[in-house]
Amino acid sequence: MTEKPSILIVGAGAIGSFYGAILKKAGCPVDTVLRSEYEVVREKGIRITSPLGDLSFRPDHVYRDGGTPEVWPDYLILCVKVLPGVNRAELVKPWMGPNTRLVLIENGLGIEQELAEAFPENPIISCLAFIAASRTEPGVVEHKAYGKLVMGTYPRGIDEHCRTLSELFIEGGIKVDVTEAVVGERWRKCLWNTPFNPLSVIANGADTKTILDTDGGEALIRAMIGEVMAVAAAEGYPMDESLIDQNIDGTRKMPPYKNSMALDYLNDRPIERDAVLGNVVAIAERQGIAVPHLNTVLVTLKMRAALEGRA
Amino acid sequence: MTEKPSILIVGAGAIGSFYGAILKKAGCPVDTVLRSEYEVVREKGIRITSPLGDLSFRPDHVYRDGGTPEVWPDYLILCVKVLPGVNRAELVKPWMGPNTRLVLIENGLGIEQELAEAFPENPIISCLAFIAASRTEPGVVEHKAYGKLVMGTYPRGIDEHCRTLSELFIEGGIKVDVTEAVVGERWRKCLWNTPFNPLSVIANGADTKTILDTDGGEALIRAMIGEVMAVAAAEGYPMDESLIDQNIDGTRKMPPYKNSMALDYLNDRPIERDAVLGNVVAIAERQGIAVPHLNTVLVTLKMRAALEGRA
Repeated sequence: MTEKPSILIVGAGAIGSFYGAILKKAGCPVDTVLRSEYEVVREKGIRITSPLGDLSFRPDHVYRDGGTPEVWPDYLILCVKVLPGVNRAELVKPWMGPNTRLVLIENGLGIEQELAEAFPENPIISCLAFIAASRTEPGVVEHKAYGKLVMGTYPRGIDEHCRTLSELFIEGGIKVDVTEAVVGERWRKCLWNTPFNPLSVIANGADTKTILDTDGGEALIRAMIGEVMAVAAAEGYPMDESLIDQNIDGTRKMPPYKNSMALDYLNDRPIERDAVLGNVVAIAERQGIAVPHLNTVLVTLKMRAALEGRA
Repeated sequence: MTEKPSILIVGAGAIGSFYGAILKKAGCPVDTVLRSEYEVVREKGIRITSPLGDLSFRPDHVYRDGGTPEVWPDYLILCVKVLPGVNRAELVKPWMGPNTRLVLIENGLGIEQELAEAFPENPIISCLAFIAASRTEPGVVEHKAYGKLVMGTYPRGIDEHCRTLSELFIEGGIKVDVTEAVVGERWRKCLWNTPFNPLSVIANGADTKTILDTDGGEALIRAMIGEVMAVAAAEGYPMDESLIDQNIDGTRKMPPYKNSMALDYLNDRPIERDAVLGNVVAIAERQGIAVPHLNTVLVTLKMRAALEGRA
């Protein structure tokens, strides 16, 4: 058995903890960089309940945010929220060695570019997580369902680093789709997230059923999905119109569902407004595409933030 | 001095109380129909502080909602909010004699038609109030500023009843503009109300300054005003594009202002969503005019209402 590549997880919330555990199961050395949960994880490790079994593990090293690494990791996996006040390039900089591959397991669109500019020599692997998991208390994560990753090399293709990592995740027990066009996959995921997440926030936490069953609600969602699609097409990722029906029908088949952005909002946590919506509207503007529905929701969220004294 | 026409005010909140007081000052017999404030007004009358002086008065008769009139009034002045659950035709029906003129001092668009259909033989006078006044406790009203009425016969023209009433209001001490096209004046007022009021609600009570200063806020308001204007034009009320600038500039000159719909929302009172916004979107649909910004706001408000278990 050859030596497994070393992993460093930056941002060990629900997502980072879960995928760290999977790679630990695959036999990799897994370290974490933590801020507020440093003490508890150092003492007790990370506890994870999951339909896959008990995924609890002790990281090989637990670093404090702002600390210094003993060695550069082979893969640095970044799992923090994409928020206006968080400079992700600065956050990972101390841990990025010359051969470190940077792996993003994060939501949204247009989130890779600033990291690609900050680390032009390091390969970047961009991932989308399809998972239901939540951090229930410090150092404790509940994995409820799913877990699949869609991943590819940024900005496109599938290089050896991506291939190797995907095999480790599969070895650890989850499904992985590798894709030649990961940015296109981001657009595809945003067909759902970009309309439903922010709309749910401005509707004060409405779930999927409330959103779709409200008079005019489904039509509004359809119009918003259409706008995302038009921007994606202009960016070189045309999609089939039938995806609108698929997104609606698929959502109607799920139990009524309050998405994570709505939950963040209702719990006074910051929301990934720009990663999920603002960047789409900015790209639309650059491409000269009208997105009046998306823009109305975006500006409303900005007004609320201004009212609450946030950016 | 000839005998003055008799007045019955239905809905003696801030607006009804104020304009009732003005007509009392003009020498008219003024009665009121009240629901929750029946006892206190019967006992103490209506107290009104105003820059115009003390406008407090005792109605000649105080009727209880559901009671029976002793005589039909010459003018029935309706000042209730226009809300989905309130059947205004039913509300005024017991008090409408064969010669009673029905006067509406209410906000919004498309609010006359159901009354015109219910009382096809009675003249209808439609009024817009430009006033800052609020009911501070049962039977007590604070008139802060303004007070002008814009009025005309519905659906258009200025008949003798309208003329007579306007002269009484002027005699009582306020400014009145009579207009041949009162529905056009409603559209003109809605250039402001239809964008600002509902937007302020979905932005959780943002004031005018917050709305306009937010990144993208002024552009959104301009787009919404443009949509209202397009619908008004299709309805036969074309307006000059310069009114967009005028509305923005005028608003910027005022002190930051939280509009009455925002205050209603923040105080858990029902909002006149359909009178101010829903009817505009419905008319747009009938006319085949796209109003994506207005529609996004409307549907969001409906989602919130659904979430709160309201219609």
